[in-house]
Amino acid sequence: MAARPGEPPILASASAVRARLLASAGVPVEQIASGVDEDRVKAAFDKLDHDSLALALAEAKAAAVAAAHPGRLVLGADQLLVMGDQRFDKPRDLADAAAHLAAFSGREHELVTAAVALRDGVVLWKRTERARLAVRSLTPATIDAYLAVVGPGALASVGAYQLEGPGAQLFERVEGDFFTVLGLPLLPLLEFLRGEGVPAWAC
Amino acid sequence: MAARPGEPPILASASAVRARLLASAGVPVEQIASGVDEDRVKAAFDKLDHDSLALALAEAKAAAVAAAHPGRLVLGADQLLVMGDQRFDKPRDLADAAAHLAAFSGREHELVTAAVALRDGVVLWKRTERARLAVRSLTPATIDAYLAVVGPGALASVGAYQLEGPGAQLFERVEGDFFTVLGLPLLPLLEFLRGEGVPAWAC
Repeated sequence: MAARPGEPPILASASAVRARLLASAGVPVEQIASGVDEDRVKAAFDKLDHDSLALALAEAKAAAVAAAHPGRLVLGADQLLVMGDQRFDKPRDLADAAAHLAAFSGREHELVTAAVALRDGVVLWKRTERARLAVRSLTPATIDAYLAVVGPGALASVGAYQLEGPGAQLFERVEGDFFTVLGLPLLPLLEFLRGEGVPAWAC
Repeated sequence: MAARPGEPPILASASAVRARLLASAGVPVEQIASGVDEDRVKAAFDKLDHDSLALALAEAKAAAVAAAHPGRLVLGADQLLVMGDQRFDKPRDLADAAAHLAAFSGREHELVTAAVALRDGVVLWKRTERARLAVRSLTPATIDAYLAVVGPGALASVGAYQLEGPGAQLFERVEGDFFTVLGLPLLPLLEFLRGEGVPAWAC
């Protein structure tokens, strides 16, 4: 079923970065935060592998919003940061962000990015992508200086870094799609959306 | 030799994208276009492989600006688009951009991105990186619609696309560093600049 004219997809997320990625590619969305308690979902699905957990979180958010918006195409997304067996949560404050960065220093970690599209409770499409990032050796002084530069912006992402900004200084190497790092498997998602007739010019 | 306080690196390029990439990472630059005739350099170095040609172009631009600015750190950059044996130049007009996109349709091409740093005629650092891009099958109607959306912006890059904008709709897959696609081997360049003491907070 093609999108109804005048009704953009709903992005079940408060993420400004995700909304901007879609808008830049010609897909404006209506943003409605899901209110899903991510910690509860994580606790309930703790035994899942990383990709399945990221998908479960993305689907839980999309499903919660879709239930209140019958007939609308709803997109959910999630991103997990994984280093070895350990999963990291979004930093709570700048001290927590500093601890994250100290843990990443001189090591590699992965970002697992998931997206789900559903309508009326039916999952129409889903996808995960991974990116691998190597952080250079960071002294405590560099971490402090970085956090002074970015301030509370460090709390906006699970990695406490902004690769598209000053965070580029933290990395030795990034393998994988930039969009995946920013929080959406954008190219496959756009392919799905074109199949739904969005945006009309690109189909 | 560390950068002199108050004297930013010079970027020997008029590229707004390259200047923005560096500024976002905390490295503001002074932009001075080199005035180098790229077609002449390309003709002179026609027999070089792609990486060497991209480096030669980057170095020619940096050297031209450095000659007029003794003691200053000067960065030069270049990007070539290569498909099979064929090199593509920046499109001259929208009809040329349409021809580029029709040639890329349903195929893979590579972007070869080079940067050089020099001071007083001495090359201090150089690097090339490659990205591989798969363009989806584009109908003439899609190409026309895309060019109507981006307008003269299509002429700003050798590929006639803006991956960070509506151009994301043209691609099936992008392998390689996003910064390389945008026009700079940014992460290695930042590593070199940190060695030069730029920016102070990241060293």
